[in-house]
Amino acid sequence: MKSLAEYRQIIENEIQKQFFDIKKQPKELFEPIEYILAIGGKRLRPALCLLACNLFSHEIEHAVKPALALETFHNFTLLHDDIMDKSDMRRGNATVHKKWNENTAILSGDAMMILAYQMLEGIENKYLAQILSIFNQTSLDVCIGQQLDMNFEQLSLQKNEVPQSEYIEMISKKTSVLLAASLQMGAILGGASADQSEKLFQFGKNLGIAFQLQDDLLDVFGDEAVFGKKIGGDILANKKTFLLIKAYELIENKQVLNHWIQFFPEREDEKRKKIEGVREIYNSLKIKDLTEKEILFFFNNALAELENLDLDFNKKQVLKDFANHLLNRQK
Amino acid sequence: MKSLAEYRQIIENEIQKQFFDIKKQPKELFEPIEYILAIGGKRLRPALCLLACNLFSHEIEHAVKPALALETFHNFTLLHDDIMDKSDMRRGNATVHKKWNENTAILSGDAMMILAYQMLEGIENKYLAQILSIFNQTSLDVCIGQQLDMNFEQLSLQKNEVPQSEYIEMISKKTSVLLAASLQMGAILGGASADQSEKLFQFGKNLGIAFQLQDDLLDVFGDEAVFGKKIGGDILANKKTFLLIKAYELIENKQVLNHWIQFFPEREDEKRKKIEGVREIYNSLKIKDLTEKEILFFFNNALAELENLDLDFNKKQVLKDFANHLLNRQK
Repeated sequence: MKSLAEYRQIIENEIQKQFFDIKKQPKELFEPIEYILAIGGKRLRPALCLLACNLFSHEIEHAVKPALALETFHNFTLLHDDIMDKSDMRRGNATVHKKWNENTAILSGDAMMILAYQMLEGIENKYLAQILSIFNQTSLDVCIGQQLDMNFEQLSLQKNEVPQSEYIEMISKKTSVLLAASLQMGAILGGASADQSEKLFQFGKNLGIAFQLQDDLLDVFGDEAVFGKKIGGDILANKKTFLLIKAYELIENKQVLNHWIQFFPEREDEKRKKIEGVREIYNSLKIKDLTEKEILFFFNNALAELENLDLDFNKKQVLKDFANHLLNRQK
Repeated sequence: MKSLAEYRQIIENEIQKQFFDIKKQPKELFEPIEYILAIGGKRLRPALCLLACNLFSHEIEHAVKPALALETFHNFTLLHDDIMDKSDMRRGNATVHKKWNENTAILSGDAMMILAYQMLEGIENKYLAQILSIFNQTSLDVCIGQQLDMNFEQLSLQKNEVPQSEYIEMISKKTSVLLAASLQMGAILGGASADQSEKLFQFGKNLGIAFQLQDDLLDVFGDEAVFGKKIGGDILANKKTFLLIKAYELIENKQVLNHWIQFFPEREDEKRKKIEGVREIYNSLKIKDLTEKEILFFFNNALAELENLDLDFNKKQVLKDFANHLLNRQK
């Protein structure tokens, strides 16, 4: 086994080979693709794919291109999601539709999805049908997750139109399934049985949900230096996070929460007031505890999947370490 | 062998089964997909796929879903192209981004591309890798063709920046290769050798180019009742067709052509004047003859590919009949 950093390096080398060494033509189509891949990202999905393969096999070379398919697909979703969400910045740089234009982001995104499928071509015949099927279902789920997210924007929290269960389904499809499928695909390519690779999928899915909930939590209660982005961003954007959904579910007098939701501050001191106001409501409702319980629920679900995995202690420990690392937990 | 109409009917039945009998959720994602498939189209690509399969095999059932993948992919490109080209109407109905909005057209288009790939899942293992590879390359070529088309819009005909050869490459990628790949995929699924199916690809590619050039020609010199759309539309839109590119290549005094290009009529009688004016220039340069020669060149290229096909006379005749039918030729 290697470290996540080592798997990542293998992926970076492959990105270099596939996208940067040979410049594809026409450049108007391929430069935006090179750009989004060049401005970074943690390469988490492909690294997990290689890790999962390595759990079952010494040989991981044949999983590198399928792993990169996952990263390429993920970055394609960023191009299109950024148009839909009207985001100007991504990883500290201008988004593709801002740096170029929307048509470029649409078409280069389309090409990128096809490039992802091209990276599945070399897969051995005995695995190809199964991998293609997982990749398709996962990709479709990611689109469904994005649609559910857009539907959410139209619903009213004030009228309690967003139940917690639907929120979990949305984040599961929008972010967790691709993480989960990365592990599952890697396991299959390493020779794992359908049953074993399915357990890794469930491990990844539950862990992904826990991670997203923790992201919601850190936005309100995190340490800016550790979290890496400004605290309170979700509150200022009235984002329908787990915390806000839960607050609307529990609060007796909605008016005071409605007041903050309907307040759109422009000055910095007003922004701080809104963040503080909402945080106080969260505190009064013990939202932090409730969210931590929910995170722990999914975290423990993930670990439970490992129990029945047919792997030796050390290999299970690698997955546990990763789970703890992802959620910034002390072991 | 069946008639094209019979292959089409098989495809219509499969569309019914896949898209209309069971309504997929969430409806916001899938309704636009059902809509674009319901408002018609000639189902030419999937029908050709079945026809090609049937040339080599009595059994075509296993080619129906892959054939539908081609139609689904084709319709996905319509959703995204209509956004990029800002088209309001498609097949006499509002385009998806007009009936809903751009985000819907982007995301439903993405989902539609994935659905196309899902329809390849059932392909027998011995064919799957080959079909996936052709489908990927073709899909990427279609995106490249769309990009080349958008690049064209930025070039100046007045400065002769658009050579004829680049135009042929653009229409080849944007429209011909999918037609060609439909035949190739069908042939492979019918058990044809790589060499035989490649010949069918070349037949389809050349025929597709001839068809597109004829479309350019009919826009200027066609009979409205037969052509099915208004004559002169390309001229009014200053579309860089084969005819206009050729005219700029041959004309000695560009000024008179520039005059019409820079004239944007609003009244109907002015529009007729522009169409007449450009047509007169075409006549003086014998553009109609030149275009017909070019069409015949690609048409004959297509037929030449049939010579070395290992099929009996009657089956080759089916392909010749189709070629003549597509180009509205009397035999």
